[in-house]
Amino acid sequence: MNSTTVIAICSIITAGVTIGLGSIAPALGEGRAVSTALTSLAQQPDAAKTITRTLFVGLAMIESIAIYCLVVSMILIFANPFWNHVIAHATGK
Amino acid sequence: MNSTTVIAICSIITAGVTIGLGSIAPALGEGRAVSTALTSLAQQPDAAKTITRTLFVGLAMIESIAIYCLVVSMILIFANPFWNHVIAHATGK
Amino acid sequence: MNSTTVIAICSIITAGVTIGLGSIAPALGEGRAVSTALTSLAQQPDAAKTITRTLFVGLAMIESIAIYCLVVSMILIFANPFWNHVIAHATGK
Amino acid sequence: MNSTTVIAICSIITAGVTIGLGSIAPALGEGRAVSTALTSLAQQPDAAKTITRTLFVGLAMIESIAIYCLVVSMILIFANPFWNHVIAHATGK
Amino acid sequence: MNSTTVIAICSIITAGVTIGLGSIAPALGEGRAVSTALTSLAQQPDAAKTITRTLFVGLAMIESIAIYCLVVSMILIFANPFWNHVIAHATGK
Repeated sequence: MNSTTVIAICSIITAGVTIGLGSIAPALGEGRAVSTALTSLAQQPDAAKTITRTLFVGLAMIESIAIYCLVVSMILIFANPFWNHVIAHATGK
Repeated sequence: MNSTTVIAICSIITAGVTIGLGSIAPALGEGRAVSTALTSLAQQPDAAKTITRTLFVGLAMIESIAIYCLVVSMILIFANPFWNHVIAHATGK
Repeated sequence: MNSTTVIAICSIITAGVTIGLGSIAPALGEGRAVSTALTSLAQQPDAAKTITRTLFVGLAMIESIAIYCLVVSMILIFANPFWNHVIAHATGK
Repeated sequence: MNSTTVIAICSIITAGVTIGLGSIAPALGEGRAVSTALTSLAQQPDAAKTITRTLFVGLAMIESIAIYCLVVSMILIFANPFWNHVIAHATGK
Repeated sequence: MNSTTVIAICSIITAGVTIGLGSIAPALGEGRAVSTALTSLAQQPDAAKTITRTLFVGLAMIESIAIYCLVVSMILIFANPFWNHVIAHATGK
């Protein structure tokens, strides 16, 4: 079990845990936001335009947090500088 | 138990745990959103069009978080660059 | 206990845990959605058409999350690329 | 304790744990759905037809999640490709 | 402690744990459903026919989840393919 293997293992596990853990709070937060938006729509249908516009902006902001986790996962898998260094080092040797 | 095996094991376990863990929050969030949508529909049937449209956009946003987890799982199984490197290395040797 | 065995063990355990863990949240979310749908139907029987249609779309979205877990489980059992590689390697040797 | 035995042990334990774990949430979800259905029936007996139809569709959706777990358990017991491979390997040797 | 013994031990323990774990949630779910049925019957005795019919169908659905666990337990005890293989192997030797 040399350095290459250890770095690969860590990258794989961290990539999975990052998006798995990072999906919990955004999903719960979006569920809550959508839920309240629908209650508000039922209570005040005349404000539908404002409510849905505010909801969509809010959802986009919450979604962006989940996307940050996805981006870090993807970077760890496809553009990992530690892995690239180790590979270049191992090939050059 | 050489590097190939260890990386394969980590990829398998991480792929399963990622989607298993990543399914919890989106499912609960969607359950909550659908649940409130139905309460709102019962309370204000005239706003059904706006409510269902808002619900579907919200569900799509929450679903996308679950899909991020599925994508990372699938990448770890079918397009794992670490695995590909180890395989290429083992075959080339 | 060679590599083939270890990979087989991990695949079996991960496949089971993935669907076992992934079934919890969707089932609870669907239970909540159906439960609210029935309350809404009792409260507003005239909106039955809209309520059931919205419910079924919502259930399908939640069900799809459980199906993602099933798909990953099935892939780990029947289309596992790591297992296929190890088998091909062992047979070719 | 050779590979055949280890794989058999893992398959047995995972099959049991999968259905044991996978039965928790669907049963609770169905209990909740049936419970609300009965409250709704008592509250609005005229909508009995719509309520029971919606309930049965909902129960079928939740039941299907439990069936996914059963299917994975059964596959691990009766159609386990890892076990089949090990058996074929041991017999062929 | 040879393979035959280990597989027998695992089958016995898993069979017990499966039905033990799998009985928790269905029992709670059915308890909740029956409990609500009785409240509803007291509240609306005229709808007794519909309520009891709905209750029985619901109970049958929840019961079926417990039966899945029982089936897996029974298979592990009486139709265990892993045990059959080991026995055939040991006898043939």
